[in-house]
Amino acid sequence: MKVLVVGANGQIGKQLVKLLKESDQYSVTAFVRTEQQAREFEDFGVETVLGNLEGTVVELEKALKGSDAVVFTAGSGGKTGYDKTLLIDLDGAVKVMEAAENAGAQRFIMVSALQAHNRQNWNEQIKPYYVAKHYADRILVQSKLTYTIIRPGGLLNEPGTAKVTIAENLERGSIPREDVAKTILAVINEESTFNKSFDLVSGEVPIIEAVKNI
Amino acid sequence: MKVLVVGANGQIGKQLVKLLKESDQYSVTAFVRTEQQAREFEDFGVETVLGNLEGTVVELEKALKGSDAVVFTAGSGGKTGYDKTLLIDLDGAVKVMEAAENAGAQRFIMVSALQAHNRQNWNEQIKPYYVAKHYADRILVQSKLTYTIIRPGGLLNEPGTAKVTIAENLERGSIPREDVAKTILAVINEESTFNKSFDLVSGEVPIIEAVKNI
Repeated sequence: MKVLVVGANGQIGKQLVKLLKESDQYSVTAFVRTEQQAREFEDFGVETVLGNLEGTVVELEKALKGSDAVVFTAGSGGKTGYDKTLLIDLDGAVKVMEAAENAGAQRFIMVSALQAHNRQNWNEQIKPYYVAKHYADRILVQSKLTYTIIRPGGLLNEPGTAKVTIAENLERGSIPREDVAKTILAVINEESTFNKSFDLVSGEVPIIEAVKNI
Repeated sequence: MKVLVVGANGQIGKQLVKLLKESDQYSVTAFVRTEQQAREFEDFGVETVLGNLEGTVVELEKALKGSDAVVFTAGSGGKTGYDKTLLIDLDGAVKVMEAAENAGAQRFIMVSALQAHNRQNWNEQIKPYYVAKHYADRILVQSKLTYTIIRPGGLLNEPGTAKVTIAENLERGSIPREDVAKTILAVINEESTFNKSFDLVSGEVPIIEAVKNI
């Protein structure tokens, strides 16, 4: 099964690419923006494809060709303005969905944010960011893709525990990026997560078990 | 038929409220943000309701109660940042749609922007604004409301001609705000425009005729 990671150069993306590369179930392609990034992945033997989330759906479709699954873990990040939030986190994400539909990449995993589906629980300080994530998720649910929307809590850079709590609605919480990457890996082929959305924070249940019981 | 105008204090909104007030077919309520604005409308004998597009759907639902139709011609405008574009032009608009569905205001007229449905024709200089309008329109099309999406070209403050061109796709063009307001008035009860979207610029066809032939 060929998995394309959009946002491969991000902090979750890099760990996910490594996990996919080590697995015997998947082959991985890193979707990256610059040739410099591509070289870094290729030095580790990872296949890459160049693409730009501000490009057209047709261009993205070419980049996605041949993939069975797409993971969207890209984001414009906190260093750019809300113009990029609209262009990347919302429109960029939806263009990848449309490209996936057109390219026949039926499986789509979206990395969203805790409680993105509940306006009343959006973090006031980055509320416009939640708007973008909310609508990207809504468009995905209405698409024909087989989706899983993972909504992690506050992202940490500490080592993972491989134990999580998964539920439709969770209180504020956090989770190491490593465990988010492991959760993505665990859901790709797990039918119990098909066409489901869930909050994700650190917890007591092993990831494999937690995703089976969704 | 009771029509609620969201964005009543805007440049199109004010002209539309006047047209609705003068018609014998409709009664109008101006949805405004501040008490000062409300007083100005009430001085002209126009009913008002206070509401905030950054509020909750439940609050908006109360403001919409009893309306048969909602016109959304609000916008955060060019003076605020793209944070407000996300909060008002996208999330604010969709919250009004959800409130309309909940309140039983079945008819919904959206003022969008020329070619908002075609990414390749978005104005590069305000592209993030088009993203917000695009997704608000998409959510409206997928709602259960009886919608009409009007996508006017460049808005002018000169007097209207009451003659327009309407089509699914039009080249760049402009139109006086007065003619946009008249077109909104003409579509509210015109069944040929139900669940339709169209571009709108100045032209040669009388508005009443143009909206009948959609």
